[in-house]
Amino acid sequence: MDLVIVGFGVVGQGVAEVIQQKREFLHDAFRKKTRIVGVFDSSSYETNKTGLDPSALIKRKASKNKVGKRRYDGDAWRILGALEYDTLIEVTPTNIVSGEPGFTNIATALKSGKNVITSNKGPLALRFRELSDAARKNNVQLRFEATVGGAMPIINLSRELLRGEKILSIRGILNGTCNFILDRMMEEGLPFAQALREAQDMGIAEKDPSYDIDGDDSACKVAILANAIFGLDKKYSDVKKTGIRGVTEDAISLAEEEKKVIRLIGEISPKRLEVAPRLVRIGHPLSIGGTRNIVQIHTDLAGEITVAGKGAGKYETASAILSDLVALLNENKKSRVIRR
Amino acid sequence: MDLVIVGFGVVGQGVAEVIQQKREFLHDAFRKKTRIVGVFDSSSYETNKTGLDPSALIKRKASKNKVGKRRYDGDAWRILGALEYDTLIEVTPTNIVSGEPGFTNIATALKSGKNVITSNKGPLALRFRELSDAARKNNVQLRFEATVGGAMPIINLSRELLRGEKILSIRGILNGTCNFILDRMMEEGLPFAQALREAQDMGIAEKDPSYDIDGDDSACKVAILANAIFGLDKKYSDVKKTGIRGVTEDAISLAEEEKKVIRLIGEISPKRLEVAPRLVRIGHPLSIGGTRNIVQIHTDLAGEITVAGKGAGKYETASAILSDLVALLNENKKSRVIRR
Repeated sequence: MDLVIVGFGVVGQGVAEVIQQKREFLHDAFRKKTRIVGVFDSSSYETNKTGLDPSALIKRKASKNKVGKRRYDGDAWRILGALEYDTLIEVTPTNIVSGEPGFTNIATALKSGKNVITSNKGPLALRFRELSDAARKNNVQLRFEATVGGAMPIINLSRELLRGEKILSIRGILNGTCNFILDRMMEEGLPFAQALREAQDMGIAEKDPSYDIDGDDSACKVAILANAIFGLDKKYSDVKKTGIRGVTEDAISLAEEEKKVIRLIGEISPKRLEVAPRLVRIGHPLSIGGTRNIVQIHTDLAGEITVAGKGAGKYETASAILSDLVALLNENKKSRVIRR
Repeated sequence: MDLVIVGFGVVGQGVAEVIQQKREFLHDAFRKKTRIVGVFDSSSYETNKTGLDPSALIKRKASKNKVGKRRYDGDAWRILGALEYDTLIEVTPTNIVSGEPGFTNIATALKSGKNVITSNKGPLALRFRELSDAARKNNVQLRFEATVGGAMPIINLSRELLRGEKILSIRGILNGTCNFILDRMMEEGLPFAQALREAQDMGIAEKDPSYDIDGDDSACKVAILANAIFGLDKKYSDVKKTGIRGVTEDAISLAEEEKKVIRLIGEISPKRLEVAPRLVRIGHPLSIGGTRNIVQIHTDLAGEITVAGKGAGKYETASAILSDLVALLNENKKSRVIRR
């Protein structure tokens, strides 16, 4: 399977490393070479039909801050259209206003009959239906496990392993930064501002933390789950949201007296898309601390299934992308058998 | 797909109900009729090549305490050998001394080229390798999601969705009865004997609770995970085990002072198979209360993925069996395409 990676920041480099590391497994399991035949960062690119060396790409990026020798204007989609490959791995930064450059990259690939694997929330939280329609029409797959909760396998679990269940609703902690802050406020009795500063010092929160703490990131994930699992056609702006700026030390210690904690919970069902701080009983799965993401899936037969994993990180995100790649290779192996 | 159900207690009846309830979904998704062509309880059976009506089977069992009109001596395997069907659903009661009648039922089906789906821990905790070899040799599948943790999808998650990961170790709460007792001891300050009586009154613990509280049930699940996920060849007697009889109120309140709880934890890695009470920090995923089962999977890339679900119950167990059935139908659909 020939891959093109667009985006060569932390996630793109993680993907390249993982493809290198899992080379033997991929070959032994699927009897086919998995090669990177193209790679793009925001200003340079490189292609090679016989495969690029992942380590060399990472080294060049580290030393020259460019992944390729060839310059371009940043419109990867113009070059993508002329390339021969099987699957696009789209890992450019999320933009939740325009969805670009992710949207156009993904749409271009799908329309030219390529599979797409992405970690890019923007395009899926803004224009999901257009992209999933394009995938169906062109008989290719659009896979996006990495867009929700990093290594937490919520999408493939819901759509594949739980295929026989009727999923009624989903609720969970979809942002590790908020959970870290709320957990520290409780554990140490810190005021919000101080817990936020601590998270910023540790690199868990951004300098401008609003995307996380105002609930935008969680709202994007709520919209993606609503579309992917309930077949809705929702944008992130359709999600009712309240962030955690208003959570006071008093509220947290009152909760603690009742053996409860406050958690920022996303709720998804055909009738409700919401992100808000909620009281959760200690001992309940959604009471966990730290930066994990955790989700409960309510179904007709199983009752409730919970899944958790690290919500961010280079290898964690690459792990989710690898799981999508393995699923594609598995499908592909079967369809090759059919063609014989 | 033609099914034979052997065992028509709570789980067998749950499976029949679920097949009835999901009839349309199964037909729409796989374009093939899923029929029950044979059913056995411990003293009677019934077969019909064109399919038995699940509701009628459940009604007859309720009114006559026999699922079928035909009597037999309890050796279902003798009759199984002469039947035409695709997949055996083996849901007779677990026997962890002999593994029977499950072992012989499963072995007979595999050797005559039938797939098997089972919830029966005994055969897999005693003679896993023999059965998995028989499945491979006969090019059929042996699936057993329901043997570990009810609706918690640990086996298919580990073997299918996490196929690209290297799984390093697994630890978790594998027995809901023990967890309920430990949780009540902490919450209400109850002594062990009283928490156990409460669990017995609520139908959560058996009259003879030793299989649960001495760690045998957890040890069976540890052995099955060791075999299924690490490719080992272990019996439940290879698992080092300590139950919860020795956990005192004092130990629990000392733990609580350090913001910890005591949980009966199973640990599985290529080097360690053990069940024992452990201290777990409050807020850690494995600190959850109630009767849930929960497992953490440690991998090379994702770090740690947690999955939880209801560990027992009619529909929860049937849900795990349905997930295996859906996986078989999905494979089957592809191989029919190939044969054309």
